[in-house]
Amino acid sequence: MSIITLTTDYGLKDHFVGALKGKILSEYSEAVIIDISHDIDPFNTLEASYAISASYASFPKGTVHLIGVDIEANKENQHIVMQWNDHYFIAADNGILSMLSQKIVPQKMVAINIHDRLPSDAADLDVFVKVACHLAKGGLMNVIGKEIHTIKQVTNLQATISDDGNSLKGHVIYIDHFGNVITNISKKYFIEVAKGRAYEIVLKTKNIKTILPNYSAIASSDKYPIKSYEGEKLAIFNEAGFLEIAIFRSNPSKVGSANSLLGLNYRDIINIIFR
Amino acid sequence: MSIITLTTDYGLKDHFVGALKGKILSEYSEAVIIDISHDIDPFNTLEASYAISASYASFPKGTVHLIGVDIEANKENQHIVMQWNDHYFIAADNGILSMLSQKIVPQKMVAINIHDRLPSDAADLDVFVKVACHLAKGGLMNVIGKEIHTIKQVTNLQATISDDGNSLKGHVIYIDHFGNVITNISKKYFIEVAKGRAYEIVLKTKNIKTILPNYSAIASSDKYPIKSYEGEKLAIFNEAGFLEIAIFRSNPSKVGSANSLLGLNYRDIINIIFR
Amino acid sequence: MSIITLTTDYGLKDHFVGALKGKILSEYSEAVIIDISHDIDPFNTLEASYAISASYASFPKGTVHLIGVDIEANKENQHIVMQWNDHYFIAADNGILSMLSQKIVPQKMVAINIHDRLPSDAADLDVFVKVACHLAKGGLMNVIGKEIHTIKQVTNLQATISDDGNSLKGHVIYIDHFGNVITNISKKYFIEVAKGRAYEIVLKTKNIKTILPNYSAIASSDKYPIKSYEGEKLAIFNEAGFLEIAIFRSNPSKVGSANSLLGLNYRDIINIIFR
Repeated sequence: MSIITLTTDYGLKDHFVGALKGKILSEYSEAVIIDISHDIDPFNTLEASYAISASYASFPKGTVHLIGVDIEANKENQHIVMQWNDHYFIAADNGILSMLSQKIVPQKMVAINIHDRLPSDAADLDVFVKVACHLAKGGLMNVIGKEIHTIKQVTNLQATISDDGNSLKGHVIYIDHFGNVITNISKKYFIEVAKGRAYEIVLKTKNIKTILPNYSAIASSDKYPIKSYEGEKLAIFNEAGFLEIAIFRSNPSKVGSANSLLGLNYRDIINIIFR
Repeated sequence: MSIITLTTDYGLKDHFVGALKGKILSEYSEAVIIDISHDIDPFNTLEASYAISASYASFPKGTVHLIGVDIEANKENQHIVMQWNDHYFIAADNGILSMLSQKIVPQKMVAINIHDRLPSDAADLDVFVKVACHLAKGGLMNVIGKEIHTIKQVTNLQATISDDGNSLKGHVIYIDHFGNVITNISKKYFIEVAKGRAYEIVLKTKNIKTILPNYSAIASSDKYPIKSYEGEKLAIFNEAGFLEIAIFRSNPSKVGSANSLLGLNYRDIINIIFR
Repeated sequence: MSIITLTTDYGLKDHFVGALKGKILSEYSEAVIIDISHDIDPFNTLEASYAISASYASFPKGTVHLIGVDIEANKENQHIVMQWNDHYFIAADNGILSMLSQKIVPQKMVAINIHDRLPSDAADLDVFVKVACHLAKGGLMNVIGKEIHTIKQVTNLQATISDDGNSLKGHVIYIDHFGNVITNISKKYFIEVAKGRAYEIVLKTKNIKTILPNYSAIASSDKYPIKSYEGEKLAIFNEAGFLEIAIFRSNPSKVGSANSLLGLNYRDIINIIFR
């Protein structure tokens, strides 16, 4: 028995998420269902990608991740399942899974082909529910799809190194609840490129020269109370392994955040210079 | 063992929903509790009605639906349970269940009479919790209430046909997370009235002459990519069976929605003309 | 087997809450997890205090309450567990539990000391997850911490009586989803001080001279429909036992609330005068 996680852009005001859970429980009454997010920006596949890649590893192996963002099957987007790092991901083939598949080669991928086995009025989501329950019960991928070997790639937002190897260019891919700014620069890639050199993260205000091990490390001196460091900017590699620019103990609605105070927005470029 | 669903206007910021679940689990530790919505507009019984009527069918028969909107018992509103289409609905008799009972005759209705069996400081919600757990465990309605045969009706917002039979007038009853506009014109009623005639949904901008089978059907030609259709208006009968006016792949905060772009608001009139 | 409740300032947009639940289920697959709130104002320990003290009693004895607000361990804040009134509370020692411990003496408190038994990259939240699962499975407090006898106190916001005993001064500690204003004046303390005397709650507009048993009690006369009382101000002791100033059937975005209409904000003073 596996957990089924849900990541959608349905919002929590409407009945959609409740109805989705009702359908899952109707199909599989023992299902354990966990919400990852239902507030993905509508049709924003990059946000969905980040949410799922940042959270999947917190779940046990075998977990089934249902990604309900931009799922209407059409001439461009078929429905797929990807087995990757011992987890299952159900999504439309709209690029959403390429952030994962670029890091580690998937174990197996299928194009879902059970559509004609469902009632004629079944919606796209009904297909996902059927597949999620099948997999959560321990069913095989072959039974619900035909093996495929490539999926759509979204590559234009990957972090890149300059020709001379002296700078690294990434993008803001997500801004969280605290207004912290997350980039697509992974710790792994940074270490590979840095090779132990000194670095500066270039910002409109003063550059950051040290990436901290955690938020509280900003309180470098024992002379001052922690509170005196509130509002200072800092950089860390977050739990998902990505470079994050943050304001220590930021409250976006009161004192501002990295997003508002440093003028960093979704898709903005972040440069790191090595010396 | 049945599922208990929750539909309230309590919001998710406060502790109310968590406390409600704690009370249910204190009474019935095996309960499976599913949220339908906690963001119903405060005291808006019409929104609650729509949310529950659009989602109940996704749950297995026997599910118990607790509706926590405007529930204080007072001289006007008693607490009731309605068994309808093999589901149970617990609500105050404030008109909230009349959207359902107008479609199909209820199997049974009772006025809850367990109030004097509870501690004197029990709140209205405690009554609902007790009843929900009783029913979810398979208990009989007679044990917790006295049979009644009528409930309060809210009729002024039903779709109506013109005297000459050539037009249908409905209202906007709900605006969803994507800004899509849902009317009280059901597919069933539309087909009955249309009798195969051509029709136009009258809008301030260009009228809509075709109700599509699903959102993606707007991409009528294979010549253009799906993306080129983003922002176009369309009409479908949604999963709940109601006429919905939508903008293809709308993002309310970025490109606008049916609500904002077509100027359609809660309780506005929608006319369909037949030829 | 005990319930684990979650109270955090993580918000629901990001993947944080889902990841937290994944970690709990990875450690303890049978866990029953209930959300109290994830919309605590960022780093607002007073709000978190209120949410937990207002809701814990709705859960069965033995419930484990994980409070994820301002939890980074640092030179000032250690991680603690408090057993209190037969419930367990896991938090950083940042004053968050003092609202509870001032009411009833805790049964036992420990400073968590399992940090060096976890992987070196374990985050503060991983410590809380480990401890929560240990306690929910019935584990002993001694195994995960060293007994302590004092915790940090936050006392400056307690309700106080005037020297002549003729007035009571409290503060607004929370504003709920309906815009109702909750003070730190408990029913217990009010009764002790009032000793049956007449009183007035001093407001900028007309004072309130009666604290009602429930919201609907505002409809004092049978001559008028309930609806005619909408928008009137009232005071009750809420389910959490605190004095609350409310507007009858308020809808903050439409007609206004106690917060907006009476000009009462977070941390404002509320005076009660006795005669």
